[in-house]
Amino acid sequence: MDNSGDDRTPVSVIGLGMMGQALAGAFVRAGHPTTVWNRTAGKADQLVALGAREAGSVAEAVAAAPLTVVCVLDETAVGALVEPLEAVVRGRVLVNLTSGTSQGARELGERVERWGGRYLDGAIMAVPQAVGTDEAVLVYSGARDAFDRHAEELRGLGGSTYLGADHGLSSLFEAAVLSLMWNLLNGFLHGAALLGAAGVPATTFAPLARTAIGTVTGWLPDYARQVDERSYPPLDSTLDTHLAAMGNLVKESEALGVGGELPRFVQALAERAAASGRGGDGYAALVEQFREP
Amino acid sequence: MDNSGDDRTPVSVIGLGMMGQALAGAFVRAGHPTTVWNRTAGKADQLVALGAREAGSVAEAVAAAPLTVVCVLDETAVGALVEPLEAVVRGRVLVNLTSGTSQGARELGERVERWGGRYLDGAIMAVPQAVGTDEAVLVYSGARDAFDRHAEELRGLGGSTYLGADHGLSSLFEAAVLSLMWNLLNGFLHGAALLGAAGVPATTFAPLARTAIGTVTGWLPDYARQVDERSYPPLDSTLDTHLAAMGNLVKESEALGVGGELPRFVQALAERAAASGRGGDGYAALVEQFREP
Repeated sequence: MDNSGDDRTPVSVIGLGMMGQALAGAFVRAGHPTTVWNRTAGKADQLVALGAREAGSVAEAVAAAPLTVVCVLDETAVGALVEPLEAVVRGRVLVNLTSGTSQGARELGERVERWGGRYLDGAIMAVPQAVGTDEAVLVYSGARDAFDRHAEELRGLGGSTYLGADHGLSSLFEAAVLSLMWNLLNGFLHGAALLGAAGVPATTFAPLARTAIGTVTGWLPDYARQVDERSYPPLDSTLDTHLAAMGNLVKESEALGVGGELPRFVQALAERAAASGRGGDGYAALVEQFREP
Repeated sequence: MDNSGDDRTPVSVIGLGMMGQALAGAFVRAGHPTTVWNRTAGKADQLVALGAREAGSVAEAVAAAPLTVVCVLDETAVGALVEPLEAVVRGRVLVNLTSGTSQGARELGERVERWGGRYLDGAIMAVPQAVGTDEAVLVYSGARDAFDRHAEELRGLGGSTYLGADHGLSSLFEAAVLSLMWNLLNGFLHGAALLGAAGVPATTFAPLARTAIGTVTGWLPDYARQVDERSYPPLDSTLDTHLAAMGNLVKESEALGVGGELPRFVQALAERAAASGRGGDGYAALVEQFREP
C-alpha cells in the first residue's frame, strides 16, 4: 500500500461519528491526504495520529480538497453545517452519506449546484467495520461527472454503484432496502412465533430459515428481470398454488392462536392479484399490487 | 459407493411425481433395494432400469420394506391410498413427505399408530434436483424411535432435522418457511416498485438486495436466541430508530404514489410494539406482536 499520499487526491471528511471515522480511516489508509472536521472536539485524535489533518471549520475542511464526504447524524445536522459552503464549494464535489429523505437530498443538491459545486447523495449498506472492504456497498445518485471523476477515491470506501441523476435516488434506495429488511425480519419472527407456540425453539428454526432465504435469494435475478419486463410466467409455482398454501398458513395460525394478522395481510395481497387475473402468473406479479397507491 | 444393495435396508417409495422419483432415485443410488409404486402406470420405468422393483399395489410396496416414504400430490391423495395399509403397516415405519396441514398429519399419525405402525411426517425444503445432496434440507416430526432407527436411510435424502414428537410440526414448519419466503419476496417486490417508480430497474436493485439479505441473515442466530430468551436488548438499532425510518418510507411511498399499504402495515406493527413499551428494544421484540392472536 502506498501511504506516502503524495500522488493521491486530497479528501475531506465532515462528521466523525463511528461511520465518519471509518470513512476517514479508509481514506487515510489508502494514502489520501485527509482533512477531517467534527462539530465537537476530541473525535479527530486517532485519525490525526494516523496522519489526518484536523480543520478548524467546515469551510476550511471543504476548501482543503476537491472532494468532501459528509456523514453526520441526520438531515437536520447536515442543514446546520452547509451555510458556510456557499463561499468555498465552487468547483468542488460534495458527497453526502448521511441518511435522509430523497426530498432533502434534492434540496441540498440544488443549493450546492447553485453555489457552483457538484453534489452526490449516497447511502452506505455496511457496518462501520466493513467500510474500506468489498463487504461494504455504497450507492450514489446525482452528478454523474462527479461520480466518474472520483470513482477511485469512492471505490476505496467499498463497492460503489451509481443509481442515476436524481439526487433523491440514494435515499429512496435506502428506504427500499430497509423495507426489504423489515419484511424479511417480520417473516422470520412470525415463523418463530408460530413454531414457538408449538414448542419448537427459534434457534432450531434459524439455520433452516437461512437455507430457505438462500433459495429465495437465488430467485431474485429472474424475478427482477420479470419486474422490469412486466411479464410474470411462473418460475417456481403459480400465485394460485401460493394462495392455497396461504390459506393453510392462516388456518395454522388461527389453530395455534398466534399472529394471524401478517398471513391475512399476505393472503389479501395475493387474493387481489389473483382477482385481477394474475392467478396463473408467478409470484413476481405481485409487484403490480405494490405499484398501486 | 456400494451399489450391491445386499447389506442395505430395503425401502419403498409411494408416489412417483418429480419429487417421488428424486427420492426413489436417491435410495437406489445409495444401494437400497427399492420398491416403488405409483397410482398411474409408466412412472416407474426409469427407476426400474436403475434397479428398482415396481410393486402391484400400495400394500405390496409397504410390505416389501421396513421403511416406506410417501410423496404424492396433496393430503387428499394421501387419504385415498392409506386404507390398505391397515393390514401391512404393523411393525413398519411410514414417512409422509407430502405437503399438508398439521391437523392432517396428526390424524394420519394416529391411524398408522393405531394399526401398529410408526409414523413420521416430514417436509422437503429443496427442488427435486437437490434431493440426495447436502443442499436438500428435510425436517421430520413424530416417532423419535423411527427417526433414529432410519437415520442413515433418511440422511441419504439430504440434511435431516428432527423437530419433535408432535406429528403436526413438519407441516407447521413448512408453513413458517413459506411465510418467511412470501414476506421476503413482498419486501423485495415493494422495494422494486418504489425504485421502479423513480426509474431504477429491478435488475439494479437485485444484487444490492442480495447484500442486504445476507446482512440480515447474519443477524438471525442472535435474534433467535433473543426470541427463545424473550429478552431483546438492541443489537443493531432500537425499534424507535426503526420507527423513524419507517415513517420516512411511508412518506417516500406516498410521494411516489406507490405501495403505501405494506410500509403502513410494517409501521403499525412496530408502533404497537413501541406503545407497549418496547421502543428501546431491538427489532426481535416484534415477535411478541406475532405471539398475540
